[in-house]
Formats: sequence, structure tokens, C-alpha cells
Amino acid sequence: MTTDPHARRLHDPTVRGFASDNYAGIHPAALAAIAAANEGHQVAYGEDVYTQRLQQVMREHFGERAETYPVFNGTGANVVALQALTTRWEAVICAETAHINADEGGAPETMGGLKLLTVPTPDGKLTPDLVDRQAWGYGDEHRAQPAVVSITQTTEMGTRYSPAEIAALAEATHERGMTLHMDGARISNAAAGLDLPLRAFTTDVGVDVLSFGGTKNGLLAAEAVVVLNPSTVNGVTYLRKTSMQLASKMRFFSAQILALVEGDLWLRSARHANTMAQRLEAAVRQVPGVQVTQPVQANAVFATLPAEVTARLAKRFRFYTWDEHTGEVRWMCAFDTSEDDVDAFAAAIAEEMALVS
Amino acid sequence: MTTDPHARRLHDPTVRGFASDNYAGIHPAALAAIAAANEGHQVAYGEDVYTQRLQQVMREHFGERAETYPVFNGTGANVVALQALTTRWEAVICAETAHINADEGGAPETMGGLKLLTVPTPDGKLTPDLVDRQAWGYGDEHRAQPAVVSITQTTEMGTRYSPAEIAALAEATHERGMTLHMDGARISNAAAGLDLPLRAFTTDVGVDVLSFGGTKNGLLAAEAVVVLNPSTVNGVTYLRKTSMQLASKMRFFSAQILALVEGDLWLRSARHANTMAQRLEAAVRQVPGVQVTQPVQANAVFATLPAEVTARLAKRFRFYTWDEHTGEVRWMCAFDTSEDDVDAFAAAIAEEMALVS
Amino acid sequence: MTTDPHARRLHDPTVRGFASDNYAGIHPAALAAIAAANEGHQVAYGEDVYTQRLQQVMREHFGERAETYPVFNGTGANVVALQALTTRWEAVICAETAHINADEGGAPETMGGLKLLTVPTPDGKLTPDLVDRQAWGYGDEHRAQPAVVSITQTTEMGTRYSPAEIAALAEATHERGMTLHMDGARISNAAAGLDLPLRAFTTDVGVDVLSFGGTKNGLLAAEAVVVLNPSTVNGVTYLRKTSMQLASKMRFFSAQILALVEGDLWLRSARHANTMAQRLEAAVRQVPGVQVTQPVQANAVFATLPAEVTARLAKRFRFYTWDEHTGEVRWMCAFDTSEDDVDAFAAAIAEEMALVS
Amino acid sequence: MTTDPHARRLHDPTVRGFASDNYAGIHPAALAAIAAANEGHQVAYGEDVYTQRLQQVMREHFGERAETYPVFNGTGANVVALQALTTRWEAVICAETAHINADEGGAPETMGGLKLLTVPTPDGKLTPDLVDRQAWGYGDEHRAQPAVVSITQTTEMGTRYSPAEIAALAEATHERGMTLHMDGARISNAAAGLDLPLRAFTTDVGVDVLSFGGTKNGLLAAEAVVVLNPSTVNGVTYLRKTSMQLASKMRFFSAQILALVEGDLWLRSARHANTMAQRLEAAVRQVPGVQVTQPVQANAVFATLPAEVTARLAKRFRFYTWDEHTGEVRWMCAFDTSEDDVDAFAAAIAEEMALVS
Repeated sequence: MTTDPHARRLHDPTVRGFASDNYAGIHPAALAAIAAANEGHQVAYGEDVYTQRLQQVMREHFGERAETYPVFNGTGANVVALQALTTRWEAVICAETAHINADEGGAPETMGGLKLLTVPTPDGKLTPDLVDRQAWGYGDEHRAQPAVVSITQTTEMGTRYSPAEIAALAEATHERGMTLHMDGARISNAAAGLDLPLRAFTTDVGVDVLSFGGTKNGLLAAEAVVVLNPSTVNGVTYLRKTSMQLASKMRFFSAQILALVEGDLWLRSARHANTMAQRLEAAVRQVPGVQVTQPVQANAVFATLPAEVTARLAKRFRFYTWDEHTGEVRWMCAFDTSEDDVDAFAAAIAEEMALVS
Repeated sequence: MTTDPHARRLHDPTVRGFASDNYAGIHPAALAAIAAANEGHQVAYGEDVYTQRLQQVMREHFGERAETYPVFNGTGANVVALQALTTRWEAVICAETAHINADEGGAPETMGGLKLLTVPTPDGKLTPDLVDRQAWGYGDEHRAQPAVVSITQTTEMGTRYSPAEIAALAEATHERGMTLHMDGARISNAAAGLDLPLRAFTTDVGVDVLSFGGTKNGLLAAEAVVVLNPSTVNGVTYLRKTSMQLASKMRFFSAQILALVEGDLWLRSARHANTMAQRLEAAVRQVPGVQVTQPVQANAVFATLPAEVTARLAKRFRFYTWDEHTGEVRWMCAFDTSEDDVDAFAAAIAEEMALVS
Repeated sequence: MTTDPHARRLHDPTVRGFASDNYAGIHPAALAAIAAANEGHQVAYGEDVYTQRLQQVMREHFGERAETYPVFNGTGANVVALQALTTRWEAVICAETAHINADEGGAPETMGGLKLLTVPTPDGKLTPDLVDRQAWGYGDEHRAQPAVVSITQTTEMGTRYSPAEIAALAEATHERGMTLHMDGARISNAAAGLDLPLRAFTTDVGVDVLSFGGTKNGLLAAEAVVVLNPSTVNGVTYLRKTSMQLASKMRFFSAQILALVEGDLWLRSARHANTMAQRLEAAVRQVPGVQVTQPVQANAVFATLPAEVTARLAKRFRFYTWDEHTGEVRWMCAFDTSEDDVDAFAAAIAEEMALVS
Repeated sequence: MTTDPHARRLHDPTVRGFASDNYAGIHPAALAAIAAANEGHQVAYGEDVYTQRLQQVMREHFGERAETYPVFNGTGANVVALQALTTRWEAVICAETAHINADEGGAPETMGGLKLLTVPTPDGKLTPDLVDRQAWGYGDEHRAQPAVVSITQTTEMGTRYSPAEIAALAEATHERGMTLHMDGARISNAAAGLDLPLRAFTTDVGVDVLSFGGTKNGLLAAEAVVVLNPSTVNGVTYLRKTSMQLASKMRFFSAQILALVEGDLWLRSARHANTMAQRLEAAVRQVPGVQVTQPVQANAVFATLPAEVTARLAKRFRFYTWDEHTGEVRWMCAFDTSEDDVDAFAAAIAEEMALVS
């Protein structure tokens, strides 16, 4: 294949950074899975053998009732899932920092017509008490009716819910007649951190619908709406289409996810990324003046640095400033982050901190 | 790569049919391009070297003002493009058979809030006179204001606009203060059929925004909104995000399109598919009782068959019944349709027709 | 009251025309009803005694299951009703000339996200066969799912469904798993023309939800969503609020409708308007060259005139040109149209026609 | 008129309470204005002499560039105004307690597709610093672009902006490339409290678009979108129609507003309501245990009561519990609240408080 003159590489593949797990590329096994699914004709839009097989494998992970709908990206998975869980007049309770609120350009509101009822949180995690700040006004037509609680696992702040925490949220959610959605863009990192099977903190503790993340864990592009409790949703197939998330050549999206979940690639990749984050945290904890701001429970490290250090460091490695006011930065590890990458980055941090007068 | 145990093939790659060009897989060069773009980190969401390069190459095809925004699928490209060309109260004139009206599950209305003003056509093609059936009511707040004319090249009926026909439509459209959108899901097949460069029937004749199709021409999944006249659009980057069409690992989408358009793969593949359709048409024209219903100007053949023949034939080869009332069927050729495929299918048609009493 | 200096009249109350029944004002009884409902405090948003009483009176007209939700205008009634009958991915079948398609500025699509599947009709009336042109594609996610048939009684063309015609439509609609909505902006004119109680051609023949019209029959502004079959709808109260149709001082809207329906004002006013239209039709049928184009079954007369006559006549009386191509005009009678108005207008038509060379 | 048997009164007009200014009825002058505008025909949808006259009078209040668009209700005014100020991908910054966020059932999101970026406030008032908590992320497609700041005058907490405060907000808003919207549901109460003409704290200090409130100040139902800076909006007429806010018999809505603004009825009524609120505040300040929680700057009094007192008092007079956790209640005075009403209510409060052990 590499003899094709147009398939030439335009980038330097040795460069890696700590900006995001979606700066990383495709795990070789996912690419191989795409190639294996290629050639010949398969029925479009999901009636292919790869999508059929995916249903089975996901049921092994998430239980016999699980229904899996591959989509293109995480925003798509979330907006499809939340529409399937709501009527036109219902609302979604989430953390202020939730991806659906902070990072999707208003897609839930603009495309789904969904009102988000947000709650400030210290660590990106909801609790039953925090949910109750918004779970009221039932029967009052002047208030968009709270119908779904959406949590992110692991959170946008790199923190992680325990199964007990999710069970408590699910119980509170269901008691109030709502359903529980999990944005699992980094669900594999959560499982690796918890050292538990995927269903232990989803199906088994009351999550109703999951946005299953694949892209940030080494796929080209593939996520899935996984309905764990089918009685809570309506029209997922239709909503996937109207939400522009229905892939014609779906076999290649299902094959990618199969590459992750049929064996333990999902777990190995996530565990590796988490380990790299822990290695980074351990290293920077030794550097005076660097303050780690969130517990490192997955593949992200949040820390505060002096602005001048951030500025100099950013010229050497890519990463995100999370909060300009506090100087908080985010360092994200991926499936392909190496020990050498971490060590070099930690050394650079130490060097730049040493220059602070 | 093929040694990975999870990358095993689940399907029979020798099976091909005539159902749709999106039943076909990925051209090897596109797959190679994905592989070449892999490894290391690239900035997500489009600030990568492949997307930059794509801008340049597309400008070589479509002119210096062209702006290219890769998206996931055709419905996404169309809905983003049409939103960028309209305000909240404007409407889109299109053929009744247009993909945006007939095959997108209501996405333009549900997600874009767009009213479609449709016109019946014999062959899927609009004309200035047909446009005028809907291009009225300006200034009347009781009528969604017609703002865009959307045409499909080649049409959903396998027919093709000439540059002169598009120029006349563009002139009429612009005279009425509207803009011209082209759904180019099969634009390469049009170029191949016309034997003209892409810009000859787009930029050069007044098309303002193009949905450029890649998936049906051998890509895994990649289309693009190509703005040919930037003064006609607003907010494409934002609308791509809110429309859930912003790929995080965009390098792989841009690399696929590059594989098509940097050389002549787009043209070779499309020309081949068109030639196969002509071969099929020529063969079935010899079969008494088969009536070809549309001129074969791209990669589709439309014909009427007796219902019993359609039923038997469908057990041997996949294809779509287009109109149950008239018995019209659609046979679509793809980049990977072989002469043997066509000959075997034509023979099967002749066999089944011979059995008609 | 009339001593208030700011309540001065700015218009000439003797001028009347044939443009629309909403050019007319408020019937004195409706104004008196508003005044009677005034003074003191009543709970806002519908928990007042007038709205309670309205429920009862409407049940006398429409049956024991009827639920009445007052709203501001007809577009509001229709969009609330259609949302209550559909999910986000469903569509509405209607005549091309239906008010929801032709005269609401795209509100169903833009606000309700509803796709309208239109059918051309000669007289504005759907039939089961016409419905079947769009009632297909169930289970196909590429097609917005047809879920509601919406008819207008009387139609935008001044024609009228018989109870048998509606019963046949209801049966066909329900057999296909759809529901039947009636836009009854001029429902009283239909009842007057049919000489039947309101329920005889609504509840009793299978209409599920009705947009009940009051404004065109002599109210200031008041329409109602009347749910005849409560099992077909969801969330009407919420949708009325999100659709900006919830009146705070609802007592005055309910009191207006009560003024119509508690006695026989609805019928007397409509019967009068219909009679005036018949008088006009009878007069113009005597005028050579005037062609009445639709049966006069309610309060509208449609006719074709030479363009020069239309131009001259329009300087003397207000009316609408319906179709510039054919020269068709619409003349609408209202509750306050007098015999003298009609005779003067008919004489003017004859005068202007006589000038045609 | 009162001889009409169906115009009979169903309610006790002597009952008044402190629940809301929209529990009150219609000021006699407004009712007289409706009657004066009645009879004969006027062009529908706004081309009538009352709507023309309204344009002039509103320009006298708000300046020569003011454009006035009557609508049905406050939610409608706000959603039309905010759509006219935004594109599909933009967002609105407002106080968490803003009516558009807390009391419109999600209409801005569901109908307008608008994301609201909310800020907690102690008193319902935004400041430039509070705006800056949300006014960021420009150019980042992952963030709905903040484009409008929406303030309420007087606020939902009964507080009032000074002209200087609004000027500072307008300056900050415009500097950031945003526009300033004012929800003026109680704008007359603000003017009365400030003792300033309407334009002194709107047009003259940089407000771009105003939702002008009439219903809460003694109208049956009439509000208006008043565009103060026409260069900031697009398509108001179209958006009013698609938002189901276009009254066919608009003359009666314009006539109502004229009744308010042509003379000083708007001011007299608002001043009276404010005075009654001050009287109530003065009385309850004497009652030990009653805590007034917000400055009384318009026609509302917010206070905390023991729950048992609230329960008993609610059986005698209608009012709203604002916050069940804190025991905060809201008492609202209207144009028709009398001194006797206030004194009786204050006495009842004192009585019930005296019973607290």
C-alpha cells in the first residue's frame, strides 16, 4: 500500500505531546480491523456482519439487554442519547463542567432543543444532593422538566466515580422519575482505574444509556450509543439519522469498536494511558511550585503552574491551559504516550520551574 | 497488521452487488493514506498538516477562494452547508427527489429548522422554470423566504446537469437574490461523465457551496463542505460543530480526501463506475421486456422489470426497488464493480426475464 | 369608558372589504365577555373559573373526553397540536395548500422541527388515496416517519369535507398507525354549511386533535387546541408554554371562546358569513366573464377575473389575488359582512367587467 | 353590551391578592381602547392605523430609530428578540434567575435553539464582572459564542438597575462585540421607581433591543419587541411569524399598548403599584420576625417567613413561595392593588406572626 504516491506522510510521527488523547492516532489493531473489514460489498447503514457481531460482544460487556448504535463522534453520541431519553419539553441535569455543557458548541440546545440545568462542582462529579439543586418543578409548565441526569466517567476534570457513587446517583435519579446517562468518552480509563469490568459501574449500578467512547482510546473515529435499559429510550435509530450520525459504511465503524472490545485492547490501552498519567504526577510532585489540583484517577493530570512557566513550557510541548485565572493546566496521556515522553516532559517542567526567580 | 487476532475478517469479500456505491468498501489508496497519516500526535479538530494540505489541493480543483471543511457524511455536509447559507426564517428550493428531501430522515427540518420547498421533476433535475414555481413570496412573512436552490449532481435519478444548465440555474438563482448549493455526493461521477474538470460545472458556472462527496467514491467516510463563494456563508466552523460533524482526529478525514483529489483517483474510480453502468445498460437493452427509464449519465441504471423477475433476481443479487408501483429498480455500480460482475448480473437478468410467461 | 381621551378611534368603522375574515373586528358579545371577566384577581395561566367553565362547555360540543387548551393564534394552535402528536423524528402529511405548509412562515419546521409531507390537491382536500402517496417508508430511518394527517375544515380553498369523507380519512389514517389532526380555523363555517353539530364531523368520525378557530369568527384573538382523543397526545401543557402560547391572563381568552360556544353565537356568525358568500356567488354568476373556480361551501368565493378588472376593482375594495398566473382571486365574507356590502361589491364587479373590451 | 346573556361574570371581582401582577385584569382605559379600535375592517397583521400610530408614539418614548413589533406575550417577545440578535451558533448571557432561564419552560432553547450562559447573582442583577464570567471563548467552535447580554428591568427579584449600571453593562457588552437586550416585562415599574423617562435607561444608555411589557401593567395581553438599535437585528418580522407571535387582528394589540403609552397611563399604573409595595414593606418591617430580603425598588416585596405562617397566610391571601428552603416569599402589587388591600394583608401577616410560639 505504501507504494501509492499519494499516501505519503506529511507529518513527523515522532512528535507527541500532552494536549489531548485525541491528538494521538489510530492503534495498529484498529487500523488492521478496518483493513480486514474491507473489500467486497456489505449492506450499508448497519445491516452488516461487523455491526451484528458488535451487538453480541457489547452484550458480553454490558449485559443481555444492551443495544449498540455506532456513531461518528462523542458530541453525536451524547446528543442522540439525550434526545432518545427526552421529550421536546424535558431538560438534562449535568455538571457545569460537563462536556455537553462546556465543549459541544451548544449542540444539545441548538440541535436537540435540550435545556441543560447545570450545577457547579468542585471536581466535575455530581452527587444526589447536587442533582437535587435542579431536580424540582415537576408539573410546572414554566420549568423545562428535569428528565435526565448526565454524568461523565471519567470526568472532564480527570476524576472518577466509584460504582457506589454511581449507584447512589442512579437510585436518586430513578426515585425522581428521571433516567441516568453516562458520557463515557473515557469509560475505558475509568474501568482501568477502578480495575473493574465495564458493567460493574454502568449496567449493574443503574446507568440507563451510555455514550461509549472509542476515539480517545485509539480509534480513527468511532463511538456508540449503548442503551443499557431499553425501556428508557425511543427512536434511537431515527434520531441517529436525523442527527447526521448514521454512517453508510458502518462496517468500518463497528470493526473499529470490535478491535477494542472483542479482546482486551480497550483495557490495555486505557491502563497504559492511566499509568503514564500516574508516572507524570509522581514526577511533578517532586518539583517545587507545581501544585496538582485534582486526584489523578485516569489519564489526566491537572496542575497549577506560574504563567511564565506555562508560556515557556508550551513552546516545547503541547498542552492546554485550563483556567487562565488560576494558572491551571491539563496534561493528558494517550495510548501511545511512552515512558520516555513522560520523563522528558517532567524534566522540562522541572527545568522551567527552576528558572522561576 | 493482519496477525492481530481481532482483525479477523467476518465477511466474504468476493460478494458484490448493485445496490449502492456505499455497499462498496475503501479503495486501497485511501486506506494507505489513513495509514500514512497515522502515528505521532497532530493537533485535533483540523489544525493538522493534512487538513492544511487539503485546502491547497481543493483550491487547485475549485479555485483560489475555495474553503474546505471536512465532515463525516453527506447528510452532515448538506445540513451544515444549508444552514451556513440561510437565516432561521429562510427556505431551500429542491427537487422532490432530492436526497435532502427524500433520504435524510427529516434532518434539514429537524436539525436545521429548514423548510424545503419541493418541485416535482421527471428526471431529478431543476430548471429555472421549476425554481420559479417556488421562488416567490419575498417580503411576505407568511412564507418561509426562499433563499437557496439546492441541486444534486449527479442526481438521485442518475442524470447529470451540463455546465450550461447549471449556469442558467445559477443565473436565475442569483437574479432572485438566492444562492446555489450543489449536493455533490457523486460529483466525481458527473465530472467523469462530462469529461470536464470539477470547477467547470461548479465554481466557474456559479455554484456557491458544494457538498463534496468522497464516501460513495471509495472512502471509508469523508465528505466536505466546500465553500466556493465565501461571501454567501456564515459560521461554517461553528455550524459544523453544532451539527456534530467536527472530527477530532480530522487528519484522517482530510488524508482520505487527499488520496482522492491529490492525484486522479477521484476521476479514475468514477470513470470506472460510470463505464460499468454503461456496460450494464448496453447489456440489458438487449433483453426484451427490460425498459431503461432514465438516461445513463453516471454510475446508475434505472429500469422497469416485471415484479416476479425483480423478486427472483433479488435472491441472486442485491439492488433496490425504486418504485413499487411502476416496478422501477435501481442498479448502481461502484469503483470496485468488475466487468465480470456486470456480465454475470446482465446474464442473470436475461435468464430471469426468459422465465416470464 | 369612551370618555377616556386615549381610547379615541383612529379608523373609519364603516369601511369593510372582502380580503379576509381577520380584517373584521370583535363581535360585541365577545367584547362584552371580556369586560365581564374583568376586575379583581384570577389565577393566571389557566387556573381561573372561565377556563374551567370552558372545559365543560367544549365537552358538551365535542364529547366527554375533550380537553381544551386556549392559545393565542392559529399557527400556535397548529404547531402545539402537531408537536403533541409527534416525536422528534415524525412527519405530517398535508395538502400542499394547507395553512401549515403555505401560510405559517415555516413555523412547523423551524419551531416544531416537523417535516411536512405535502400532496397536491385540486380543491384543498385530502383523500385516503392522496394520503397514501406519502404514507409509506415506515421503519426506514432515512424517511421522516409519517405520523399525522392534517386536514383543514373548511379548507384554504373554501371547500368542505363531509362527515363521511372525514370518517374515511380517519379510518385510513388510523389503519396506518397515524393520527388525524384538523385545522379548524373555520370550523364553525363548516358546521354551518353542513348544518351539523361540531362533533358530527370531528369527534364522532375519528378526528384526534382539533385546532379550534375563534379569531376568524369574531374574536379579538383566541383559538384552542382541543384534544378529542387524549391517548394520542403528550405534553400539551408543556408544549403550549415552550411554543410561547400560554396566556398569563388566560381568563380573557377563555371568556372569548365561551362567548362563542356557550350559546349559538359561533353558529349564527358563521352561518351569516356563509350566506353572504352564497349571495356574492349568486350575484357574480350573473356577470359574464367571471368564473367561480371552487364550490362555495363556506364563507369564501374563489373566482377568476381578467387582470385589468382585478387591478381596477382592488382600488375600490380590498381582496386577495390568489394566483397571479391564472387570475384567481379570493373574496372572503365575515360575521359583519352585510347584504349591502355584498350587493355593492357585486355591482362593482359587474361595472368593472363591463369595461373589458 | 352587558345585556348579552353569555357575557355573564363567573368570578368574584372583589377578590385580590399578592401573587402576581398578571392575576390582575385589564385597566378600563385599555378595554376602552380595544372597543374604540373595533368595528369595520382593518388590514390584518399590522398594516392598520393603530399599529402605525404606535410606531410614532413609541418613537417619542424611545427615540427616532425605535421599531416596535407587537407580540402576544413576554416569552414570545424575549424569544423573538433574542433570535433577531443571534445566529444559530450564538449564546445569551443572563442571570440564573432571569425569566428566560427560569420561567419560560425552556422556550429559548427548544424554540430558539439558544444556549443560555447563566451567572448566579445575589439580587438578579448582572454587572460587567459577572458578564465576564461567561464572555469568553470567542473564535472557539467548541463554545457557543456569547453574543447577547440579557438583563431584566426590573429584575425577577424586584430590584432595579440604575441608568449608570446599564450604561456600564452596555459599554462592557459592546466592547466585547455583543449586544444588550432588556427584558422589560416591568419596565414601567422601573421608570416609575427611577422617576425617569423610558429612554433614559434604555436607548440613551445603550440598550439595543427591548422586550416592552404591557400585560403586567394592566393590558389584556400585549407586549412588544422594540428595536432601539436597528443595526443589531435581522428578520424581526419573519421571526415574529415563525415564533407564532404575529396577531392577525393586530390593531387590538397596538391599541392596548397605545392606551398605555400615548398618555401617562403606563406611568400612573406602575407608580401606583410601586407605592403599594412600599406601603406593604413599611407595614411588614414593623412585624417582628418578618425579614425583607431584597430592596423594594418596584412593585414586589420579597421576605422570609416561618413556614407555619406562610401556610396559614396562604389560606387567606394568594402569594408565591419563592424558595422553600429559606422560607422566602414574594408579594406582588398590581395597578389595581388598593391601600385597603395592603393594610388588610399586612394586618393578616401580623396576626399570623403573632401566633408563632
